[in-house]
Amino acid sequence: MKALRWHGAGDLRLEQIEEPKAMKGKVKVKIKWCGICGSDLHEYTAGPIFIPTETHPLSGDKAPIVLGHEFSGEVVEVGEGVTTVQAGDRVTVEPIYACGECEACLKGKNNLCEQLGFFGLAGGGGGFSEYAAVPADMIHQLPETVSFEQGALVEPAAVALHAARQSKLKVGDKAAVFGTGPIGLLVIEALKASGAADIYAVEISDIRRQKAAELGAITIDPKQCDPVSEIQKRTNGGVDVAFEVTGVPPVLKQAIHATKMEGETMVVSIFEKEAPIHPHDIVMKERTLTGIIGYRNVFPAVISLMAQGYFPADKLVTKRITLDEVIEEGFEGLLKERDQVKILVQAE
Amino acid sequence: MKALRWHGAGDLRLEQIEEPKAMKGKVKVKIKWCGICGSDLHEYTAGPIFIPTETHPLSGDKAPIVLGHEFSGEVVEVGEGVTTVQAGDRVTVEPIYACGECEACLKGKNNLCEQLGFFGLAGGGGGFSEYAAVPADMIHQLPETVSFEQGALVEPAAVALHAARQSKLKVGDKAAVFGTGPIGLLVIEALKASGAADIYAVEISDIRRQKAAELGAITIDPKQCDPVSEIQKRTNGGVDVAFEVTGVPPVLKQAIHATKMEGETMVVSIFEKEAPIHPHDIVMKERTLTGIIGYRNVFPAVISLMAQGYFPADKLVTKRITLDEVIEEGFEGLLKERDQVKILVQAE
Repeated sequence: MKALRWHGAGDLRLEQIEEPKAMKGKVKVKIKWCGICGSDLHEYTAGPIFIPTETHPLSGDKAPIVLGHEFSGEVVEVGEGVTTVQAGDRVTVEPIYACGECEACLKGKNNLCEQLGFFGLAGGGGGFSEYAAVPADMIHQLPETVSFEQGALVEPAAVALHAARQSKLKVGDKAAVFGTGPIGLLVIEALKASGAADIYAVEISDIRRQKAAELGAITIDPKQCDPVSEIQKRTNGGVDVAFEVTGVPPVLKQAIHATKMEGETMVVSIFEKEAPIHPHDIVMKERTLTGIIGYRNVFPAVISLMAQGYFPADKLVTKRITLDEVIEEGFEGLLKERDQVKILVQAE
Repeated sequence: MKALRWHGAGDLRLEQIEEPKAMKGKVKVKIKWCGICGSDLHEYTAGPIFIPTETHPLSGDKAPIVLGHEFSGEVVEVGEGVTTVQAGDRVTVEPIYACGECEACLKGKNNLCEQLGFFGLAGGGGGFSEYAAVPADMIHQLPETVSFEQGALVEPAAVALHAARQSKLKVGDKAAVFGTGPIGLLVIEALKASGAADIYAVEISDIRRQKAAELGAITIDPKQCDPVSEIQKRTNGGVDVAFEVTGVPPVLKQAIHATKMEGETMVVSIFEKEAPIHPHDIVMKERTLTGIIGYRNVFPAVISLMAQGYFPADKLVTKRITLDEVIEEGFEGLLKERDQVKILVQAE
């Protein structure tokens, strides 16, 4: 079958590999759609980051590996012992490998597992291919009301929902989102679902800011004004929770300054560098800085919210391509056209 | 009467001023003991910081002002309308000026008041004098079981108790305290009262580290080993809560690194400069950074805990001097002898 494999930084290859088998405990999925994630892009430009060059203890795999961890598909075969799904089921995949034995896992917090890995990054197969054989416990069924396209957005939407759920935001609170790439836009949706009263979106790209406005956020262009004083003015003292979704060091301080007394700043992005903060800004208003990685135990909730219309694919997906186009139009496209939001790749 | 007044940085004067009167709503206190606080020292070396050079909206006062906000004494007279205390009562003072009208005040969080000021820093009188006329709502009675010396420690102990109460520490949790000056040592006491299982104290000064050990902490000398790996090793993965009580930028990262997954770092110190952190350290383990300023609604609790033996003056006070010695032996002494912990000044 056809599959996109990572061989090294800058070295993605669309090649023919053996079709995976529905071994014991696994579910063979014919892939429908798979999204390109920021981490896929990082692996392409600067990897390996999450990709194992030595055998990963949980996936048992190492580079070259098939990429793609945001995908939906249809079950074509189930391995021995799998009773939760059957051929014909419409599914999405929660691609977390966790050891099940460390303190985090024993507490049900598999995203904090010491050996955390992702199917499609740590090996095992991936969504940029025709088929994947996925451990049965990673499979979630999609109801008829949730399309396959939508199903490919469950994984990134789970990050956003986990961020909202881990934040102190309560219904009626005000929030700010710094950076409205795919995850920032999904955070806006998670905040809408959470009943946020006002959602301020700070974004430098015109197209991404326009997307945020389409989703209902009050948008602020940091090229036009100081976003902190603008938010402080409009909210009469700051938002309850600010979400940092840029990974750009100076923005962290802006996010902190945009919060009110006892406000919280939630980091949802991956920073490559250190960022200066002034602890005085934390202390004098008893603010909090926290962060999340990935998600845990929220896939069913995301799917239910999608059935209600949240995280809409038709507003978030800006480009649909085929597997044959994945390198040129997908990865290279995202690097060239920074105004893209989410690109979905159709496997068949 | 004799009083120590701040006239400018480096300009403290022990001088004769008019004795304050027990005006309406005020309580005239004959001062017994007053502690020298780190912020008094900052005002001396680098002020004005909290000291108003224009009339403070709540104290109605401005420099030169009488210093001293950690004090105990005996009521000698009460003004019109004061019914809560009477002459002869043994008292301590919660020296917070708050407007009573802003959002913070209306929520009962007067330490976050927009106009926050401290009696003895923002004016009104102070503890380094023979008498002070204190607003009645700042007065707390001391039971017979709590000495006047102990009463002068209620204010700094309240900072420590507020920090412990605002932290996520639960009975049985492990904690680390970075920096065991007076507040750090009081934090150790607040953690003991909170039922912390193990308390690690990281301190560079031998005498202060020895004090921490006397209070029951497991001490770590950062000159001898890397405190982060030492704590990580001894706790098998980090403490639940780390308290940063140094105000020294590189220590902030150490405190964060000393916490386990979902651990919290609580900043109790005043930083004069920015500090670099790596947001990745927050994100990958879903840690939290927060902070507190002052205290609120905890003076009665501190006094009760003191009656149980917590925050013991006999272990925390390293020097007792008279008001006549306050500049040379007190302020200058603290600057020269960095191994001092708490110096108390006797007013009479």
